[in-house]
Amino acid sequence: MSKLAWLSVLACAAALHAETGYDAWLRYAPLEGAALDQYRQAVPAVVSLLDASPVAMSAQAEIVRGIKGMLGRTLREESSIPRENAIVIGMAGEVRGLLPAIDLAPDAFWLRGVTRGQLHFLVMTASNDRGLLYGAFALLRKIAMGESLENLDQRETPRAPARWVDQWDRLNGTIERGYGGNSIFWENDHARHDLTRASDYARLLASIGINACSINDVNADPRLLTPEYAPEIARIAGAMRPWGVRTAISVDFGSPQTVGKLDTFDPLDQKVAAWWKARIDALYAAVPDLAGIVLKADSEGRVGPSAYHRTHADAANVVARALAPHGGLLFYRGFVYDHHMDWNNPKNDRARAAYDNFQGLDGQFDANVIIQIKNGPIDFQVREPASPLFAGLEKTSEAIELQVTQEYFGQAKHTVFLVPCWKETLDFQMGHAAVKALVHGFVGVVNAGLDENWFGNHLSQANLYGFGRLAWNPDLTSQKIAGEWTRQAFGPNPKVDQTVAQILLTSWRTYENYTGPLGLQTLTDITGNHYGVNVEASERNGWGQWHRADEHGVGMDRTVATGTGYIGQYPKAEAERFESLATCPDDLLLFFHHVPYTYKLHSGKTVIQYIYDSHYEGADEVARYVEEWKSLRGLIDDERYQAVLAQLGYQAGQAVVWRDAVTTWFYRESQIPDARGRVDHYPGRVEAESMTLTGYTIRDISTPSPGRGNGRPVVTPAEDASGGKVVACPAGTASCTAATKFTGLPGWYKLHVEYFDQANGASQYRVFVNAQLVDEWHADLRLPSVRLDSTTSTRRTIAGIALRPGDEIRIEGTPDGGEAAALDYLEVVGQ
Amino acid sequence: MSKLAWLSVLACAAALHAETGYDAWLRYAPLEGAALDQYRQAVPAVVSLLDASPVAMSAQAEIVRGIKGMLGRTLREESSIPRENAIVIGMAGEVRGLLPAIDLAPDAFWLRGVTRGQLHFLVMTASNDRGLLYGAFALLRKIAMGESLENLDQRETPRAPARWVDQWDRLNGTIERGYGGNSIFWENDHARHDLTRASDYARLLASIGINACSINDVNADPRLLTPEYAPEIARIAGAMRPWGVRTAISVDFGSPQTVGKLDTFDPLDQKVAAWWKARIDALYAAVPDLAGIVLKADSEGRVGPSAYHRTHADAANVVARALAPHGGLLFYRGFVYDHHMDWNNPKNDRARAAYDNFQGLDGQFDANVIIQIKNGPIDFQVREPASPLFAGLEKTSEAIELQVTQEYFGQAKHTVFLVPCWKETLDFQMGHAAVKALVHGFVGVVNAGLDENWFGNHLSQANLYGFGRLAWNPDLTSQKIAGEWTRQAFGPNPKVDQTVAQILLTSWRTYENYTGPLGLQTLTDITGNHYGVNVEASERNGWGQWHRADEHGVGMDRTVATGTGYIGQYPKAEAERFESLATCPDDLLLFFHHVPYTYKLHSGKTVIQYIYDSHYEGADEVARYVEEWKSLRGLIDDERYQAVLAQLGYQAGQAVVWRDAVTTWFYRESQIPDARGRVDHYPGRVEAESMTLTGYTIRDISTPSPGRGNGRPVVTPAEDASGGKVVACPAGTASCTAATKFTGLPGWYKLHVEYFDQANGASQYRVFVNAQLVDEWHADLRLPSVRLDSTTSTRRTIAGIALRPGDEIRIEGTPDGGEAAALDYLEVVGQ
Repeated sequence: MSKLAWLSVLACAAALHAETGYDAWLRYAPLEGAALDQYRQAVPAVVSLLDASPVAMSAQAEIVRGIKGMLGRTLREESSIPRENAIVIGMAGEVRGLLPAIDLAPDAFWLRGVTRGQLHFLVMTASNDRGLLYGAFALLRKIAMGESLENLDQRETPRAPARWVDQWDRLNGTIERGYGGNSIFWENDHARHDLTRASDYARLLASIGINACSINDVNADPRLLTPEYAPEIARIAGAMRPWGVRTAISVDFGSPQTVGKLDTFDPLDQKVAAWWKARIDALYAAVPDLAGIVLKADSEGRVGPSAYHRTHADAANVVARALAPHGGLLFYRGFVYDHHMDWNNPKNDRARAAYDNFQGLDGQFDANVIIQIKNGPIDFQVREPASPLFAGLEKTSEAIELQVTQEYFGQAKHTVFLVPCWKETLDFQMGHAAVKALVHGFVGVVNAGLDENWFGNHLSQANLYGFGRLAWNPDLTSQKIAGEWTRQAFGPNPKVDQTVAQILLTSWRTYENYTGPLGLQTLTDITGNHYGVNVEASERNGWGQWHRADEHGVGMDRTVATGTGYIGQYPKAEAERFESLATCPDDLLLFFHHVPYTYKLHSGKTVIQYIYDSHYEGADEVARYVEEWKSLRGLIDDERYQAVLAQLGYQAGQAVVWRDAVTTWFYRESQIPDARGRVDHYPGRVEAESMTLTGYTIRDISTPSPGRGNGRPVVTPAEDASGGKVVACPAGTASCTAATKFTGLPGWYKLHVEYFDQANGASQYRVFVNAQLVDEWHADLRLPSVRLDSTTSTRRTIAGIALRPGDEIRIEGTPDGGEAAALDYLEVVGQ
Repeated sequence: MSKLAWLSVLACAAALHAETGYDAWLRYAPLEGAALDQYRQAVPAVVSLLDASPVAMSAQAEIVRGIKGMLGRTLREESSIPRENAIVIGMAGEVRGLLPAIDLAPDAFWLRGVTRGQLHFLVMTASNDRGLLYGAFALLRKIAMGESLENLDQRETPRAPARWVDQWDRLNGTIERGYGGNSIFWENDHARHDLTRASDYARLLASIGINACSINDVNADPRLLTPEYAPEIARIAGAMRPWGVRTAISVDFGSPQTVGKLDTFDPLDQKVAAWWKARIDALYAAVPDLAGIVLKADSEGRVGPSAYHRTHADAANVVARALAPHGGLLFYRGFVYDHHMDWNNPKNDRARAAYDNFQGLDGQFDANVIIQIKNGPIDFQVREPASPLFAGLEKTSEAIELQVTQEYFGQAKHTVFLVPCWKETLDFQMGHAAVKALVHGFVGVVNAGLDENWFGNHLSQANLYGFGRLAWNPDLTSQKIAGEWTRQAFGPNPKVDQTVAQILLTSWRTYENYTGPLGLQTLTDITGNHYGVNVEASERNGWGQWHRADEHGVGMDRTVATGTGYIGQYPKAEAERFESLATCPDDLLLFFHHVPYTYKLHSGKTVIQYIYDSHYEGADEVARYVEEWKSLRGLIDDERYQAVLAQLGYQAGQAVVWRDAVTTWFYRESQIPDARGRVDHYPGRVEAESMTLTGYTIRDISTPSPGRGNGRPVVTPAEDASGGKVVACPAGTASCTAATKFTGLPGWYKLHVEYFDQANGASQYRVFVNAQLVDEWHADLRLPSVRLDSTTSTRRTIAGIALRPGDEIRIEGTPDGGEAAALDYLEVVGQ
């Protein structure tokens, strides 16, 4: 190690405590004042571990770590019941002298205060080593939350035995739908040399009770089943094992042919069955505790049993039978649908697919097969009803698949706390039971990455936390989970607790408000990046995410009476509620029904006015988040304060892009004006195309640009830009300017510059008032588009500008690479 | 620019506001609440600049920048008196219509509120462009300090016209006595390609009224006078010029011979005079506003006029005459002394040197020569009386040289606020006048470097700030300066104001307490790094920093009656006060008198007991600073909070090293025990040499190690280690351990591990209690020694350890490079 500047070294030591978000909710921030005194009294000096398993050792080490962080004390690690007060950790048999024998389910734990003469023991017991670990995290959580340890008697049993996360990591190190950097497991087609991140991830997972992790993309790379990869999978499994997180993999159903060089992958072929058995035996030789396998077949281009006219049960069982002797599980994805549907057929309906494909097979799956069902019938849209398949399988194990990675939820560039959304599905009544009572497992698609804070957004960590907590106990409320996460992630300040939790708890509704409300789905570009606005992307293609909006009305008729019949897949009570306009909830109206724009919601508002209003409310709400966050300055660490402030500021601009694009589209389509006069009227806005331009050329963004987007012409929606036009600085031009004269009253103003931050360059922008430079920046965010569209449309806000009538406001853009330093508009807002 | 993780980019944007210390006291942190509202009312929207000079443009730009930071508003830059409220900046002639003509000295400014009809102008005027700039910084300071702008009428004139800083930067990029990284001006024998730091440094200097900067070491590299360097000097001058900071250089007096290839550098030789004229004319051709030249001659190995039996006046004048036609100044250093004095001669006295060398030449110096006199007669020691030369020159211009870089003040690894020390000299009465009234110039040796915070210690910035403020107005109090700096550097929180200022204002006395009190000088290693403890380094050598401590007594007899007669150099009143033990102040007693250890101070305490007590007080005080600093958590930014906490924690350990070494030395010498029983009795301390050692070998650190320290044998003082011995892990050994059994009562303890962080490696240490690892670290600070001595002796504190009788505490050291993972002792302290 080289010797650096002396204080840099000290400061680096300090930086180990820097709030990068790496520790997520396991910060163990120092307690102060009365809380510190209280727990220094209550927590004994010794933590004694009676069990010798590596996972139990993690439990003991974690208690030492957590207490050191929160109380500034290093507990003594001992290995027998000491003659002084102690925390005692052991299996039921090991703590016999202290606790009565009771039945504990696997992974359950029991924390109990026990007095023996003068001595007081805090006993932690379980029926397996993972249970001890979960008890340790529960104890530390109690302290972080400020809960009393007096008369402790807490027994917790996880609701579902299988609590898995899936990572869609590719062997090359990228992650499908990952927004927090590259893979913590893979790089350059091999397991990473340094698996510290994998181990630290497993610790985060263990802290919320997750007991397995699938380490590669469900769109699986067949190579993972070649013998060369077994030792690499074993290394990853070794990194996660001390945290009780078992490893699973995703496989490609065609592997017997592509990897095994058989002439078939027919699941009923004996050679194929033998091949699966041999490969899986070999896998277990390398990873004896492999949790199981995830399989996506016959969906989105993956091969499957249909190639041989076999059923999904045939496919699942051939793999499951190879797993069974080892105790492995087969998670078979219910996400199977035809993406070449004829959109002119009003009876076609992608929402029907999961039920149609699997319900008839109920009873044909082996016992170690679990059907993995997405929460809703489509694909993680901003709001969907629960999938009817949850009630459709009665003799088959099923798991609910929730998406922690925010694919359709702003891709971690927007803050959306998903627990209230998931709660809606879990609490969704399906005949005699709620969904949460029907599922045997929870699967979260997480896609954490190498970004220091795992997700690219500090607040997105709350989603992983919430997923784990719900998998453990789906009865927990959203408020409780938001409160727990906030307290652990940001420390004990009531103002912080209240503000962060409030942002989290309203964020889903807010996001829905400025994207696709009333069951319209997210209204993003479903054939592209799933990020920017694209109302029409749902229509006129085979992907089946139709909302059927036209000049007369909007919504997908899924009634039994006149529509696709999808509603008939629900149990009777739910079907009746959705079938009738009188009882169908507003929030799902357009998912189930096609209505005219003037249709009146239960609230009395028309559908079109609701679309307008909700978008303005959503955008306003994000602007308020920014102000609320600012009130936390100095109450939380500067590092995360600044990072989240920047994120929310970006989101506030993006919400306006969404607001304007969606309302414009519906206004153009419906021709019904906004009753409040906002849509298509933007006070203070000057379109770039109407400014005095030097160098800049005007582009109609909806002009198809041939050759992009997989070779097909790409049409950018006109509403992605205000007025449908932008100005762009042609390649080869040194710089361009757009200028306008200010004609308002003298005063203090805020300028919003709407520009385009494409992924293929980092243009520079400079803004002048008369001769005075008032702001400059580089367009260097990482946004998923190279086009001039709603994905790249970005807002820069310049506050505190003194303007006088006749002032010239001039924006100078300097293109870089393929990025055109483009501008949409300038908006001048009084302050 | 490459596209990074999207939020990293946002966070990087936020990091532009990160509190690295780069902006020092010019942070312009956002105001909030009532203060924000007040100034948004009081500050007009326009700042109009009537003058066109680049320096005046800096003034206008700085106001825009400062107001943007503090009020979040971008003022309009205009160039005439507008028809609305405005700040108006202009020379006296330019603001004629608004202000009456008054005489303003160069660099002075006048800020005045002026009402014209409905309009209100805040007018800023001066007689030169620098004055406008200083007015701008003064206005911004008023806002940062929360002072009212109502009825503004503030006129300030700097006390001294020459307010210089010297940088001891070498052309290779290192800095002599620089503790904040390498040079901002030079690297690889050339001016740095990127001079942004030079420009930003000039801005800092301008903000406190500094008007010139010498850019190279006073131990000058002759090459700087070769023609090749003129354009490089010009580039640096260009970087600083917009901030009104003129450039100066240091030269070597032998240059006519070494650079000019003459056969002499005799100042009275016509060829030599002609050479100086030609070179300086050439310099001015490149840098027309060169401020002047700094010259160190006949001192510490530099050649000088003595080579030709010429006087310092001859030497100064030959250069000054070449400068005069260009208006340049020649700063001639009074720091001239013989460092080969016979220490056995009780009449010899280095303190006499400056006066003896220069007083007789009074009247012989040209008008543009300024004698640059260090504050005290020795060399920036922890406490010295003012140099009598200040009163000794009546017909010669003189400047006071203060050392901002903390050479003898803990080298920025210790926090020492020097303003109270400097104030003592400036307020020092010399016959009819105080020193501050006698000097015509201020020179601060700053040595800021490339470290992000310029000095390697955030709090050390206060010294540069204080130097500039005193050079502008030496009547300012230490309290006022500490308050100004704290408020600007850390923002407006009363608790922060109070705590930081309290640390600053007591820090000099604290440092003196644990180093060399009573006028003993710093007691550091004066022949080595000037950092660690070395009481004997002052003695038995020709450098003349003698304190004459022996077994009977201590102090340097400088009386007229029996001593060196130095006291006679002072004007009569001061001489009489110092000559008499009855009136000599305790703080300078041992500087002026030799007394027995049992001599009673005015306080009634004996000298030896004072030495003991002060050292314990000093060390305790730094420990209190750490606790006081901790009370600021959350009230200031985390970044600087953590960095300063680490610095103060290190200093607290170092203060104990000093305490123990100095008290041990005096105890050994005097054989008089500490009345309070502390010296040589360290409860809870276990010497490493008495522990059970594996691999470690015991070393007596005072055994001379031949071949080091310029080839002479180096003797490390025995008192640099507790018990005189350490244990070191021999090179080639993988690791060593030192173990001891704990025998105290069960309870919570803090462990202090005293180890050695040498500069030639980064050993690893691990501490175990029984089998449990309780701490580990790398010894990787940058400390100026490769030896096992007080410079490298470093404390690691491990808090919150539960110990029981019989516990084994084991320290494992893993050497690295030349660093021996050495240990001095373990101290176990109850908590």
